[in-house]
Amino acid sequence: MLIVGELINSTRKAIAAAIEAGDRASIQQIAKDQANAGARYIDVNAGSFQDREIEYLTWLVQTVQEAVELPCCLDSPNPAALEAALKVHKGIPMINSISLEKERCEKLLPVVTANDFKVVALCMSDEGMPRTADDRIRIAEELVNFLLDHKIKLENIYVDPLVQPVATDQTFGREFLKSVEQIMSRFSGIHTICGLSNVSYGLPQRKFLNRTFMAMAIAKGLDAAILDPLDKQMMANVLAAEALVGRDNFCMNFINAHKAGKIVC
Amino acid sequence: MLIVGELINSTRKAIAAAIEAGDRASIQQIAKDQANAGARYIDVNAGSFQDREIEYLTWLVQTVQEAVELPCCLDSPNPAALEAALKVHKGIPMINSISLEKERCEKLLPVVTANDFKVVALCMSDEGMPRTADDRIRIAEELVNFLLDHKIKLENIYVDPLVQPVATDQTFGREFLKSVEQIMSRFSGIHTICGLSNVSYGLPQRKFLNRTFMAMAIAKGLDAAILDPLDKQMMANVLAAEALVGRDNFCMNFINAHKAGKIVC
Repeated sequence: MLIVGELINSTRKAIAAAIEAGDRASIQQIAKDQANAGARYIDVNAGSFQDREIEYLTWLVQTVQEAVELPCCLDSPNPAALEAALKVHKGIPMINSISLEKERCEKLLPVVTANDFKVVALCMSDEGMPRTADDRIRIAEELVNFLLDHKIKLENIYVDPLVQPVATDQTFGREFLKSVEQIMSRFSGIHTICGLSNVSYGLPQRKFLNRTFMAMAIAKGLDAAILDPLDKQMMANVLAAEALVGRDNFCMNFINAHKAGKIVC
Repeated sequence: MLIVGELINSTRKAIAAAIEAGDRASIQQIAKDQANAGARYIDVNAGSFQDREIEYLTWLVQTVQEAVELPCCLDSPNPAALEAALKVHKGIPMINSISLEKERCEKLLPVVTANDFKVVALCMSDEGMPRTADDRIRIAEELVNFLLDHKIKLENIYVDPLVQPVATDQTFGREFLKSVEQIMSRFSGIHTICGLSNVSYGLPQRKFLNRTFMAMAIAKGLDAAILDPLDKQMMANVLAAEALVGRDNFCMNFINAHKAGKIVC
């Protein structure tokens, strides 16, 4: 399971304050904590600062990569901010995200296709959020084929089928899960990714629902997630689910995590 | 989710002692507790007493059904014990279980086919335990078609694909999950059932692994389980997973369980 640590996001007040104050130590500590907890990419988002996103996203990449030897997940729809951040980024980043929305797609395609980056492909079009698995698969097929036509490698594509709240429509969880399975089987070698906390919006016990849904999504083939790796219960669920679907040789990751007291449930 | 309460089983020391002592109160309390916790069938097993199974299984059915208005899941491969128990059973029982093993199948078929019972169909043949999803599906197809040929209704069949430990072979969990999905899609209207605690055999944190696996199996379509309904964390996982796959109208079961303090996680 490829974990993208989600915490360095300017929509969070503490992060926005640290960015504005140029507080390197705080940002670097959060990057280190996420790396130690198992993140393999550190998401960086400065989108709350529209006028200074270029400057701040670049600063975040430099600040994070001084602290950890990990690539970033560059979380912006702004090609100018991405290009500036890419100039200072070391290693192979993930671009978060492209979609079938015409404006976003046209702007980001040159950035993505010029390089051998990993890219999050949102199942979103100008028709809005998908509702059914069929909606998602239709968008995914068009978007993936479009990216392949532009020489992006299949194994660099992370399709995000978009989680929606089951409290809004009780079919939303099932349709999401179905789409993960179908995307993984139609494009052998592709990846699926998501941030799944939306699924529990409007319900009690959200964290419990989120981690239960994570195990269910792993059962369906999900192999990457944007999440808070400091959430020990969530990470325990990921480890358990991975062992249970045979993605953990001899269950050693799970057993070692247990021995280290990391299986908090 | 159809829950079969597993606790009244003579392989458990306290139950064996209660049976031998004719302790109605203890058996009835466990039956009531399981019913209150959400069981819709009460499994009864007196198989530890080979010589007295007929007498004891009959006594268990009578004792349980005096205490709760639920049918029993008659857990025996012994046709004489089943026939005796059926004579006193009220309502429509579940027979646990038939399989493709020649001896078991020949003996039990007359009991099962003479009536409109529900029946657990184990994916087991004389070749032994299945290892892969393909093994399970091959046995399931042969067994289900055989039962259908003998006028058993599809909706009365509960296929148990047989959970095996991931610590023995790390593919066992994945193959089980795959078989649940394929059986549910090949036979529209059929059910799948299992007792899943075997999955974690040989590993630490077994209860956590078991309930995580339950959520994963529900994601794949499992719609019945033989389990301990007094395990509050397991039941919370069942409720969460059911809400997340749209089997809980407006998530009301989950919300009400939360309000009643039953979502223990």
